[in-house]
Amino acid sequence: MKYLKIPAATITRLSIYSRALEGMVEDGTPVVSSKTLADLCGVNPAQIRKDLAYFGQFGVRGVGYFVKELLFDIKKILGLNKEWNLAIVGMGNLGCALLAHQNFAKQGYRFVAAFDNDMMKVGRKLATGLMIHPIDELVRVCRDTGAEIGVICTPPDKAQDIANRFLEVPVKALLNFAPVQIQVPDGFKVENVDFTVKLDNLAYHLTAG
Amino acid sequence: MKYLKIPAATITRLSIYSRALEGMVEDGTPVVSSKTLADLCGVNPAQIRKDLAYFGQFGVRGVGYFVKELLFDIKKILGLNKEWNLAIVGMGNLGCALLAHQNFAKQGYRFVAAFDNDMMKVGRKLATGLMIHPIDELVRVCRDTGAEIGVICTPPDKAQDIANRFLEVPVKALLNFAPVQIQVPDGFKVENVDFTVKLDNLAYHLTAG
Repeated sequence: MKYLKIPAATITRLSIYSRALEGMVEDGTPVVSSKTLADLCGVNPAQIRKDLAYFGQFGVRGVGYFVKELLFDIKKILGLNKEWNLAIVGMGNLGCALLAHQNFAKQGYRFVAAFDNDMMKVGRKLATGLMIHPIDELVRVCRDTGAEIGVICTPPDKAQDIANRFLEVPVKALLNFAPVQIQVPDGFKVENVDFTVKLDNLAYHLTAG
Repeated sequence: MKYLKIPAATITRLSIYSRALEGMVEDGTPVVSSKTLADLCGVNPAQIRKDLAYFGQFGVRGVGYFVKELLFDIKKILGLNKEWNLAIVGMGNLGCALLAHQNFAKQGYRFVAAFDNDMMKVGRKLATGLMIHPIDELVRVCRDTGAEIGVICTPPDKAQDIANRFLEVPVKALLNFAPVQIQVPDGFKVENVDFTVKLDNLAYHLTAG
């Protein structure tokens, strides 16, 4: 499988297709048409075919896609045929909510390290069995636990310092919940989570309705 | 301004453009080329022109876009030239984190009502001044406070019941953080927030590098 320069939006859509396919696997659906899959994912069938065409030949003309097979292939493309180890920094409300959220484990993301600078929290064992470490130990603990992706849930003015520490591990991929732009060198990647982008879609729906 | 059938992805991108333009307004940048704006937003310049073309004529050939003007226009398109009133249900870690997150107020989203079924929480006044109401009062309180968008942060098995109550208000737009598919009638819109979709982008980056 060749990795060309793929649009970021294609990767996001593959991820969304995989969520829909997982639902079908759970329901026992063996085959799906590109029309049905497209409707479920809020895109048009041509988009699905175009997205998949970057990676090869999928589906059977006049039949559709074999659900389990396509899910397996998409997960392989995305690199989800393995578990990924996450390290999370900032054990406030958001950090605790993320650690407890069922989606991560379900999708193969495993928290292996947690950090905070609040001395009331450091050393505490979480319900998941994880221990909260001080941030000064980030580099060492991330190396020891094999952390691959950093999750930043700190206040905005701390986020860049945390990112710098992750780069030293080196952890090359960061999921950033702090409302601030983080600078990283080439080859490192940051995904920012901004809940309000989704709200803008709703505002547009209510306005343009 | 006419509202045609606009792709959902275009609306999401408009939202992302507006975030970048806000940064430029803060920095005092008066004009931006579509190339610079595109680079900041991770798309190509043709995409920006195509997205904006749905809504009219923007920018000046050979000059670019006037930052403040384009931001104003995009906010108007998205319906963000007013504040939106949010009602939030489920005051666990995630609900509390959202209430405290700076992005909402910054983008014109205001929490006007909060609900939970935990009797230890009901009646408590939050740092923001909001009082937590029992869920049985959702319809009445949402009508009284003029709630327009519902935010669901409950466990998955409670989410559909909460959605049904919102539909009764009627609140026609829901932001759903519960990891479950919510059913709504035509004309109502649900946006699901799934943090792991962003993680899949990172996993792909680490795999395909």
